[in-house]
Amino acid sequence: MQFLSDNAAAVHPAVWKAMLAADAPAPPYDGDALSRELDARFSSLFGRECVALWVATGTAANCLALAAMVPPHGSVICHREAHIETDEGGAPGFYLHGAKLMLAEGESAKLTPATIDAVLAGIRQDVHQVQPQAISITQASEYGCVYRPDELAAIADLAQSRGLRLHVDGARFANAVAHLGCTPAEACAGADALSFGFVKNGGMSAEAIVFFDPALADVVRYRRKRAGHLQSKGRFLAAQILAMLEDDVWLHNGRAANAAAAHIAQAAGDRLLHPVEANEVFLRVDATEREALRNAGFSFYDWGADAARLVASWNADTAHVAALADAIRQL
Amino acid sequence: MQFLSDNAAAVHPAVWKAMLAADAPAPPYDGDALSRELDARFSSLFGRECVALWVATGTAANCLALAAMVPPHGSVICHREAHIETDEGGAPGFYLHGAKLMLAEGESAKLTPATIDAVLAGIRQDVHQVQPQAISITQASEYGCVYRPDELAAIADLAQSRGLRLHVDGARFANAVAHLGCTPAEACAGADALSFGFVKNGGMSAEAIVFFDPALADVVRYRRKRAGHLQSKGRFLAAQILAMLEDDVWLHNGRAANAAAAHIAQAAGDRLLHPVEANEVFLRVDATEREALRNAGFSFYDWGADAARLVASWNADTAHVAALADAIRQL
Amino acid sequence: MQFLSDNAAAVHPAVWKAMLAADAPAPPYDGDALSRELDARFSSLFGRECVALWVATGTAANCLALAAMVPPHGSVICHREAHIETDEGGAPGFYLHGAKLMLAEGESAKLTPATIDAVLAGIRQDVHQVQPQAISITQASEYGCVYRPDELAAIADLAQSRGLRLHVDGARFANAVAHLGCTPAEACAGADALSFGFVKNGGMSAEAIVFFDPALADVVRYRRKRAGHLQSKGRFLAAQILAMLEDDVWLHNGRAANAAAAHIAQAAGDRLLHPVEANEVFLRVDATEREALRNAGFSFYDWGADAARLVASWNADTAHVAALADAIRQL
Amino acid sequence: MQFLSDNAAAVHPAVWKAMLAADAPAPPYDGDALSRELDARFSSLFGRECVALWVATGTAANCLALAAMVPPHGSVICHREAHIETDEGGAPGFYLHGAKLMLAEGESAKLTPATIDAVLAGIRQDVHQVQPQAISITQASEYGCVYRPDELAAIADLAQSRGLRLHVDGARFANAVAHLGCTPAEACAGADALSFGFVKNGGMSAEAIVFFDPALADVVRYRRKRAGHLQSKGRFLAAQILAMLEDDVWLHNGRAANAAAAHIAQAAGDRLLHPVEANEVFLRVDATEREALRNAGFSFYDWGADAARLVASWNADTAHVAALADAIRQL
Repeated sequence: MQFLSDNAAAVHPAVWKAMLAADAPAPPYDGDALSRELDARFSSLFGRECVALWVATGTAANCLALAAMVPPHGSVICHREAHIETDEGGAPGFYLHGAKLMLAEGESAKLTPATIDAVLAGIRQDVHQVQPQAISITQASEYGCVYRPDELAAIADLAQSRGLRLHVDGARFANAVAHLGCTPAEACAGADALSFGFVKNGGMSAEAIVFFDPALADVVRYRRKRAGHLQSKGRFLAAQILAMLEDDVWLHNGRAANAAAAHIAQAAGDRLLHPVEANEVFLRVDATEREALRNAGFSFYDWGADAARLVASWNADTAHVAALADAIRQL
Repeated sequence: MQFLSDNAAAVHPAVWKAMLAADAPAPPYDGDALSRELDARFSSLFGRECVALWVATGTAANCLALAAMVPPHGSVICHREAHIETDEGGAPGFYLHGAKLMLAEGESAKLTPATIDAVLAGIRQDVHQVQPQAISITQASEYGCVYRPDELAAIADLAQSRGLRLHVDGARFANAVAHLGCTPAEACAGADALSFGFVKNGGMSAEAIVFFDPALADVVRYRRKRAGHLQSKGRFLAAQILAMLEDDVWLHNGRAANAAAAHIAQAAGDRLLHPVEANEVFLRVDATEREALRNAGFSFYDWGADAARLVASWNADTAHVAALADAIRQL
Repeated sequence: MQFLSDNAAAVHPAVWKAMLAADAPAPPYDGDALSRELDARFSSLFGRECVALWVATGTAANCLALAAMVPPHGSVICHREAHIETDEGGAPGFYLHGAKLMLAEGESAKLTPATIDAVLAGIRQDVHQVQPQAISITQASEYGCVYRPDELAAIADLAQSRGLRLHVDGARFANAVAHLGCTPAEACAGADALSFGFVKNGGMSAEAIVFFDPALADVVRYRRKRAGHLQSKGRFLAAQILAMLEDDVWLHNGRAANAAAAHIAQAAGDRLLHPVEANEVFLRVDATEREALRNAGFSFYDWGADAARLVASWNADTAHVAALADAIRQL
Repeated sequence: MQFLSDNAAAVHPAVWKAMLAADAPAPPYDGDALSRELDARFSSLFGRECVALWVATGTAANCLALAAMVPPHGSVICHREAHIETDEGGAPGFYLHGAKLMLAEGESAKLTPATIDAVLAGIRQDVHQVQPQAISITQASEYGCVYRPDELAAIADLAQSRGLRLHVDGARFANAVAHLGCTPAEACAGADALSFGFVKNGGMSAEAIVFFDPALADVVRYRRKRAGHLQSKGRFLAAQILAMLEDDVWLHNGRAANAAAAHIAQAAGDRLLHPVEANEVFLRVDATEREALRNAGFSFYDWGADAARLVASWNADTAHVAALADAIRQL
């Protein structure tokens, strides 16, 4: 019973179907008909003109987007526990040519105008200090929490007033939209670019970088190739994304995963370390309790010495979820 | 009738089958059983201990391998028309942090000890000049020509005597091995690392970097993540590669593509610009002749003003090949 | 009455004399007799074989030294308030090609084995996390405090046991040695490289990078040129350094600056934010008090809202120092 | 009798005088009065608004200027024998984060619109190929030849029509202006930035980057610090430059060096490999002849197997020059 990672889950049947259908000769790279369709599909989804490029990983999506926003001598303000800071093997340093991540605080890995301001307050406008050019937030956050539209608006206002770009890491964007019950556009309002994740949500190997400022996309086209991320049979990535968008598969999957996590959360009571708003459950459980859960057949990651992270996938088995909820209750 | 690129061809059925079979929950990244199998399979194929890592593109394979061999202040000697110089959007500059490519001459995009020496002769051992640390050759070359074992040995000897690493870009390594009729090990003897290509030969999105020096792999593991190339569902890349190795699919495909190219070459006579030893045919044809071929239904790239490049895929249609051969004869 | 920065002070007469004497035609770069003398002079000073290279700034010295120790995918552990983190405009990100600084805590900007361990404890040996390769400490620290030999030994032991290199930023190394009353070797024992500062201590534009591992110097020779720091009339940098070493000018200047700071410190009583062990005094003074000091003719930097930094130079005027001490007493 | 390099020559007395005069306490970095004066002085010299920043070396000047013009995924078109390509230890790769140098041909290391066009013609506007963003020319060229105003205008026109920035490496700009007898502005018309060299012309350790587009300077201010080139006692660099500008010392020195070279050139007759328009003489002389010259007391660099480079300094000794001319005649 796997609650280790949504990365470990299976690929959605609609994705497989679209990939198999894409297996006809076609122009290489992103010259094929499917890749050419992405801009229109995302523009329709977001209700405004946008440009969308596929890449294979969220790390590439985040770093390519940020690299177009920030010069090598600049910096990105992000949360101390942002994925780009803690889990991408230093990829921002590579893609941004040594630009810095400036770490801000915030409950449940969410930034606020106040925590961003606290970072900005420490920076003199002076060549001795690196100057920030962008803010990156994660929607839903690394602790499975979701920015409300008014929270986004406040951050976007701050970004604009300080001349900073805004990037949204949406590795679990579907879960955030499912939670908010709003439009995708509302769930990332004010962003210049969004890393729209599909791999954790039923895709195989395709994420989209959605640019609300087309000038950024013009840079990233070159940077994507330069990073070895322009796959020659790109039609198979485009096919995955289009399949996820078709009939809102992405949203249904996000809802399903959220529902499973909510089910688990109900059982957890005051063991919860963070509100469960997406598909991740952070649980206060000591080593003995974790062993008990593992002995009962559940796999998950430890989260420090006294906690665990349990992630529900888009196809989480109802029986497994119920069993896990029971097991937690009985700890 | 598509002779544009082997990139445009379909995915081999065995690859699809393996990918579908891999669609069970598994540890993410390269912790799954399939990824863990690669070292053994390549060690067996090459008859010696080696370490193999998957990546999605040849550009990533080449640049990650070279980045482990060459410090940022160093350089790589390669052919003036090497793929890494002409077609990778500056990826070596990115991955090698500004290290230089030093361009050497050679017939049909093949280096020789003499042309490498000519580059070395121009370099004083002096901090004002960038110092070379590696040689990169392409097997088969960018003009579809193949290094013989004795040619490889001569280059490897030179590399060793000068303290240079040797990298082999094997985007079409299968075609080279098929042409030589030797073992894979013989076709890249002396190399420290090989980019073993599968995407042009029936794969979808997986290439292998094969390290004959495991210390290089230890670096590339980190660099791969840092470049956003560590896919979370890596089992689907490993599955592709294992399927290509199983029953020598890679070799059969290479032979099939070579045979198709040879068929076309026979028709081309003295129009051939380079010996046809792999699956690429470079043809002297003027604009009128190219138009005639296109009107007859053949797609291909122009190669400058007076030539064309025609590439045979692993699944080249026999009838299309015969038709092309006829069309060329009738020019 | 200038207590703004030791950077602002005058150049020592012996330095001028040596520079003027160096104004004869000589081989360019570091081929001149003076530059050639550095290795021997520093080897003699440190009582062991070492290699010394001049550069114009401490930032270049620190970053070149670290770049030879740490690959682009690695990191350096340093104090949260280390100069390389807070005041070098992101130079480590540039020179180390995106390698990371990992920030540790510690009183008065000094690291301890415990605070370094706290950083190490948070890092899994896993490609998702950047791995540390070096520790950088500042002797004397950014708050004018000095590592004792036993503190250095503890850090050096930790570094060795974890396979980490040790770099010492010695922008105020002279002040540290003067305070400790030990040999220069004892004041940086265990270091692989030392940025030995002269500019804040009576020099004009020359710092030395002293390598206790010559292999690092072999890399930095190339990196120095690549960074545009190999000056063509390098003899004028070597002359400065040799003049500072001759008759222990560096040490006398360090002692003089320390004595001036001690004089001020005595007047400061419990206003002192940090022990005064070198030539910097950090003083608790509110805005009104700072204004009073400035009105009395003293220049210095504010240090946040309720403090000031006062720096004594090698040639601090005794009368100015006494006046400052009085003024502080009368606050 | 030294004809090795203008780098090896002495420092002009006016430079010494200004440096000694600058030895009073002053704000650090470029906050001092002398550094603040540069913009006005260069604006007056060039008859238009410009911004000027000091750095210690020509390599830093060239690379900082280019780094502000060209993104990491771009390229610079320069001559195959440009200093930035052949003699800066890969500094452009470092400063431009892996951007490429695209090498063009041209007599005597001078580019022409035709040779630039030949490079541009080979580049498809396509992500697989690196796209050029700037042209860099050297005035006077690496072979001591000078661009005429009409030649500059033609290159500037081409740059503008193709959306390329124009950089002028003026390591020997004084010699070029002296030769042309025009204004400094005319000698670099159309440039966005000029590396104005002083070190080879009587300075010690200061070059100016003159920006005709102030937006570039705003970037370089940060990049200069980030590269460790913001010296804390910057007043000594500013003093050198101001002294060189005062009473046209730079121009007098350029004329003197040119005159010495012209004297040598007259003796050389058809041994000259390039027109002598600045202070460098490239001479066809075989090994025996070079030995004879060296035995007669002249020092210089070999230039390949059958030639020598002789450089006249600003303070070339008239007797030495005459002796050299004689010695060449007698070969």
